[in-house]
Amino acid sequence: MDFQAVLDDIDAQIRPLLGTGGRVASYIPALARVSPQQFGIALRTCEGQEAAAGDATTPFSIQSMSKVFTLTLAIRGLGEALWQRIGREPSGSPFNSLVQLETERGIPRNPFINAGAIAVADRLLSLGGDEALAKVLQMLSSLCREPVHIDAEVAQSEADTGFRNAALANFMRGFGTLDNEPGRVLDVYFKQCAIAMNCQQVARAAGYLCRDGAHPYDGTPVISETQARRVNALMLTCGTYDAAGEFAFRIGLPCKSGVGGGIVAVLPDRLSLCVWSPALDGTGNSHLGRMALELFVARTGLSVF
Amino acid sequence: MDFQAVLDDIDAQIRPLLGTGGRVASYIPALARVSPQQFGIALRTCEGQEAAAGDATTPFSIQSMSKVFTLTLAIRGLGEALWQRIGREPSGSPFNSLVQLETERGIPRNPFINAGAIAVADRLLSLGGDEALAKVLQMLSSLCREPVHIDAEVAQSEADTGFRNAALANFMRGFGTLDNEPGRVLDVYFKQCAIAMNCQQVARAAGYLCRDGAHPYDGTPVISETQARRVNALMLTCGTYDAAGEFAFRIGLPCKSGVGGGIVAVLPDRLSLCVWSPALDGTGNSHLGRMALELFVARTGLSVF
Amino acid sequence: MDFQAVLDDIDAQIRPLLGTGGRVASYIPALARVSPQQFGIALRTCEGQEAAAGDATTPFSIQSMSKVFTLTLAIRGLGEALWQRIGREPSGSPFNSLVQLETERGIPRNPFINAGAIAVADRLLSLGGDEALAKVLQMLSSLCREPVHIDAEVAQSEADTGFRNAALANFMRGFGTLDNEPGRVLDVYFKQCAIAMNCQQVARAAGYLCRDGAHPYDGTPVISETQARRVNALMLTCGTYDAAGEFAFRIGLPCKSGVGGGIVAVLPDRLSLCVWSPALDGTGNSHLGRMALELFVARTGLSVF
Amino acid sequence: MDFQAVLDDIDAQIRPLLGTGGRVASYIPALARVSPQQFGIALRTCEGQEAAAGDATTPFSIQSMSKVFTLTLAIRGLGEALWQRIGREPSGSPFNSLVQLETERGIPRNPFINAGAIAVADRLLSLGGDEALAKVLQMLSSLCREPVHIDAEVAQSEADTGFRNAALANFMRGFGTLDNEPGRVLDVYFKQCAIAMNCQQVARAAGYLCRDGAHPYDGTPVISETQARRVNALMLTCGTYDAAGEFAFRIGLPCKSGVGGGIVAVLPDRLSLCVWSPALDGTGNSHLGRMALELFVARTGLSVF
Repeated sequence: MDFQAVLDDIDAQIRPLLGTGGRVASYIPALARVSPQQFGIALRTCEGQEAAAGDATTPFSIQSMSKVFTLTLAIRGLGEALWQRIGREPSGSPFNSLVQLETERGIPRNPFINAGAIAVADRLLSLGGDEALAKVLQMLSSLCREPVHIDAEVAQSEADTGFRNAALANFMRGFGTLDNEPGRVLDVYFKQCAIAMNCQQVARAAGYLCRDGAHPYDGTPVISETQARRVNALMLTCGTYDAAGEFAFRIGLPCKSGVGGGIVAVLPDRLSLCVWSPALDGTGNSHLGRMALELFVARTGLSVF
Repeated sequence: MDFQAVLDDIDAQIRPLLGTGGRVASYIPALARVSPQQFGIALRTCEGQEAAAGDATTPFSIQSMSKVFTLTLAIRGLGEALWQRIGREPSGSPFNSLVQLETERGIPRNPFINAGAIAVADRLLSLGGDEALAKVLQMLSSLCREPVHIDAEVAQSEADTGFRNAALANFMRGFGTLDNEPGRVLDVYFKQCAIAMNCQQVARAAGYLCRDGAHPYDGTPVISETQARRVNALMLTCGTYDAAGEFAFRIGLPCKSGVGGGIVAVLPDRLSLCVWSPALDGTGNSHLGRMALELFVARTGLSVF
Repeated sequence: MDFQAVLDDIDAQIRPLLGTGGRVASYIPALARVSPQQFGIALRTCEGQEAAAGDATTPFSIQSMSKVFTLTLAIRGLGEALWQRIGREPSGSPFNSLVQLETERGIPRNPFINAGAIAVADRLLSLGGDEALAKVLQMLSSLCREPVHIDAEVAQSEADTGFRNAALANFMRGFGTLDNEPGRVLDVYFKQCAIAMNCQQVARAAGYLCRDGAHPYDGTPVISETQARRVNALMLTCGTYDAAGEFAFRIGLPCKSGVGGGIVAVLPDRLSLCVWSPALDGTGNSHLGRMALELFVARTGLSVF
Repeated sequence: MDFQAVLDDIDAQIRPLLGTGGRVASYIPALARVSPQQFGIALRTCEGQEAAAGDATTPFSIQSMSKVFTLTLAIRGLGEALWQRIGREPSGSPFNSLVQLETERGIPRNPFINAGAIAVADRLLSLGGDEALAKVLQMLSSLCREPVHIDAEVAQSEADTGFRNAALANFMRGFGTLDNEPGRVLDVYFKQCAIAMNCQQVARAAGYLCRDGAHPYDGTPVISETQARRVNALMLTCGTYDAAGEFAFRIGLPCKSGVGGGIVAVLPDRLSLCVWSPALDGTGNSHLGRMALELFVARTGLSVF
C-alpha cells in the first residue's frame, strides 16, 4: 500500500479544517500557548517502511501518551505482579475522577486513567529509584533512535497546577496503593507527561507494539508477544478517556491519546501510527487527530475488526 | 489450520474440570436446574469450514447473547438513528445497574447492558409491532438454517422474577428513552433472553460478523461491512459485563456472553465461535467457556491484537 | 401570643409576592392547572387555640405531606419492627433517586423519600389489606374532625405518569424490601398522595405531633410520646427533600412539604402549623410557604434551636 | 433539676459497661494507645450551674469537636459570606468521602464533614494568617476560662498519616474552594483536631450555644442569636457523621462528636453538655457516650423535639 500517498491525502483533507473545531488544552499556560494551526501524521510499518505528512517533525508534549511507555517499562520490570494493585477494566468515568477510586478502595481501574498511571509511576520509582525517569527517557530514545527530552516549563506548570493529581496520589497512598511518598511519585508523573516528541519519533517508538513486542530497529524483545498484545488490548478498551467505546466503534485501532493533541495508534502485525493536532474535542482527544484516524481507516480498510 | 483437532484438544482439557468451579445461574428455577456437567464448543470459518466438540448440539438458553442479534436487527432497521438514545461506551458498572442511568438521564451506556438491550427491544417494537419477536426468531433461523424457539418456561420465569428489569424499563420510560409501554417492551426482552439454541447454531448464526456483514450461507448483506465492524467493536468493549477489559486483555476477541453459560466470539475475516458451559464465574461469564477461549487463542495464536 | 395577628401580618407580607417566584409542579396536568395566586396559613396550639389567614380553607393536594400520616399509622401498627427495612438517615440525594437504593441494597434511607414512603405503603398493605387506604383516610378524618377525600383525577394522573415511582417499587421488590406486588403498593401510594385537604385541616391533623402523640381533640394516644418525638426528628432531618439542612438552618422547625405546595410544621409542646402556596422553588418546596415559615419564626422567635 | 444526681446515675450505669463495646480509634498511634476504660460527663446550664461525673477532668483529643469552634470563629469573621463555598446540607456519605465533592464541583456539603472543616480552616487562614490557630486556642481558653493546648504528638501523627485529608484539600484547591496552599491549610486542620480538653472545659466552652450566642461567663456576644441557632441546627443535621438521623431520632439534641470519643451536646436555652469515652461504634461516634446521652434524655425528658 502506498502509505505516503494516503498520509498526503489525509493531510490535504485535514489542513483546511485547522482551527475550525475543538480547543487547545488550557489548564497550563505552556500548553495553552500552542497554536492549533498544526497537524502532523507519521507511520512506520513492521518492515520498517515509513511515511509522514504535515508537521510530523514538530515536537509536542506527549502528555498521557507517555502512559503506554511507562506501562511497558513496569510490565518489563514486574510482569504479572504489576496487576496486584492496578485493574484492567474500562472506567466508565472521567480520566481524573476520584469517585471510582473511593468505591474500589484505592485500586485504579486501569493504567491509563490518571490514578492508574500514577500507580505505575510509583512502581517505576520502586524499581528504579532516582533513575526511574532517566530509564523512561532511555527507553524512548532507544526506541526512536533519537534523544528525547523533558520540557522543563511544561513539567513545572504541571506541578504548579496539578492539585487533582495530588489528590489522587494522596488518596491512593491513604489506601496503600502507592509505596512511595506522593510528592516523589508526582514528580515522576508530571515529568513523564512533559516529555516532548514529534509524530515521527512516536510512530517509531511504538513500533514494538505492532511487532509482537520486538524493538522496531534491532528486533530484541522489549516485552513479550503476549505482553504486547495485552498493551494493545488495554489501549483499545481504555486508551482514549471517555471515548474508548467511540474510538473502537469508529476507528477500531488500539489508541492512546494525550491532551497535547497527540494520538498513537497500533495495527498489530502491520504498523504503528501517530497523529497530532493540538485542538481537543469535548472528550479530551485531538479533534482533527481523531478525524485523521477515521480517514485513515476508511481509506485503507485497516482495523482490528 | 485443523480446527477440529484444536476443538477436540480443548474439549479434552476442559472436560475433567467440569463441576470444579463457578456456579450455575440461580435467579430463575429453569436455569438453576441445568447441570453444570456440560461443555460444548463449535466454530464456523468464513469459508464455511465447521468444527465442533463436546455438547455442541445441546440446546441452552442464549440469554444476553440474544442482544447481538436484536442489535443487528435494530441497526438494520434504523441505521445511525438507533444511537440517538443509546450510548456506545463501556459502562464500568454492573450490567443491571440503575446508577449510571440516573446520572446520564435515562440514556443507557451501550446496547449490551440490560438497560440498553431493553431500549433496543423498544425500537424493535416500534419497527415491527406485534411481529417484533417473530422477526428476531426469523433472522436467527435464517442465519443458522434451523428453526429456533423460545423456551416458554424460561420466559415465564424471567417475567415472574424480573423486577430489576422492570425497574430499568420504567425508569427509562420516565426519562422518555422508551417509546412503548414498559410491560410490552419487557415481554419482548424476557422472551428474546429465553431463546434456546446450541453451540453449532450460534456459531453459524454469528457468521455474518466475521464476513463483513454477509449472511453466512447465502452471502446477502445482513448489515453493512462498517456496521458489522461496529458490532464487533461493541462486543469487544462491552460484551462481557464487568469483565470486558479482562476478556480483551486475556482473549482479545469480540465476545458476547449470556448467563445461560454461552459465549459467542468473532475473529473478523476468519471465523465465528461459540462455547457453552453453564457454571458462571463471579463476573457472570461462563467459567469454563472463558477458559476454553483462552486455550483457543493460546493454541491458535488468533486474536485481534 | 396573638397568633391571629401574626398570621394576618404574614399574609399581608406574602400576598403581594404571589406569582413572583417559583413554579407550580408540572409533572401532572391536575397539579399544573392550579393557580399560583394562592396562599394560606393556619395553626393550632396544644391548648386548642386556632388562627388562620389567607386561603386557609381552600383544599389542595397534600402529596408528600401524606407521608407523615402513613408513617404514623405504620409506627402504630408495627412499632420498632417498621425500621427493619427502612432507614432513618438524611439521604443527601434527590427524593426520587435510585442511586442510593442500589448502593444500599434496596433499603430506603428514610420514610420521607419516595422509596421509603412506598415501603411504608407496602407495610400498610400488609397490615390492612384492602382496607389500607381507608384506614389512612379514617385517621385523617378523625384527627381533623372533617371528612377527607382522595382527588380521583390527581390519583389517576399520578398513576399514568409515575414511571419513576414504578421503577423504585420494582427495584425494591427485586431486593425483597416490599412484601406486596409493586402494582398494589403503587396504587396505595399514588392515592395517598392525591388526598385533598386545606391548611386548617392539616394544622389540626398534625396536632398530635406537638402534643406528645395525643389526639388533638380527644387526647387519646395516636402514638406514644417517644414515637411522636421521633417523627418530629425525622421531619427535621429528612422532611423537606434536599433542603432539610437549609430548613433547619433558617427555620428550625420539623417540617414536611409536598409538591402540591403545602408544608406542615411542628413546634413541639406548642403548636402545629400548615402553610400553602402552589409555586415551588428549585428544591421542590413551596417558595412562598418557605418564606412564610421564615417570617413566622423571625416574628415569634419560636424554633427548636 | 438535680443534674448532679442525674450524671452520677448515668456514670453508675455506664461504668460497668466500660470495655464492652466499640473500639478506640486506631488510625494514629497516639489515639490508639488511649485506654477505653474511661468515661466522663459534665454539663453547665445557662445560669451557670455545673455538674460532672466520672473522668470529667481527664484531657482527651477533641478531634472533630473542634469543628464547632472553628466554624464559630469563621462565622464571626465572615458572616453569611462564609457560605459561598460551603453547603449546609447533610451529606448522606462518609465524613471523609471525596465522591460528593467531585459531583458537586468541590463545594463541601457542610462544615462538619472533613472537607467542609478544611474549607473553614482555609477561611481562618485568610482571616488570621499565621495567627489563625492561636485565635482558635484563645477563643477556647476564653470560653472555658482555662488555658487550652495542642497535643503535639497527636498533631504530628495526624500530619504523618493524613493522606485522605491531603487528598480532600488538594481536590478542593483544584476546584478553587481553597484560597491558601493545601499544606498550610492542613497544618491548621491537623492541629485544631489535636487540641486536648476535658469534659468540663468543653461543656463550659459550648455554653454560648445554649445562651443565644452569649459568652458563658461574661455574656458578651460570641456570635449573634440567629447564628447560634444556626450552629445548633447544623450540629443536629450534620454533627455526628453518618448517624445524624439516628442521633436526632434517639437523642434529639444538637451534637458534635469526635473520634477521640467526645461528644458535645446542646439543649438551647437550657444547658451544654460533654460526654467522653474513647471506644467508638461503627459510625465513628463514642459508643458509651452515645448511650450516656440516651440515658440523659430518657431520664430528664429534655430534647428539642
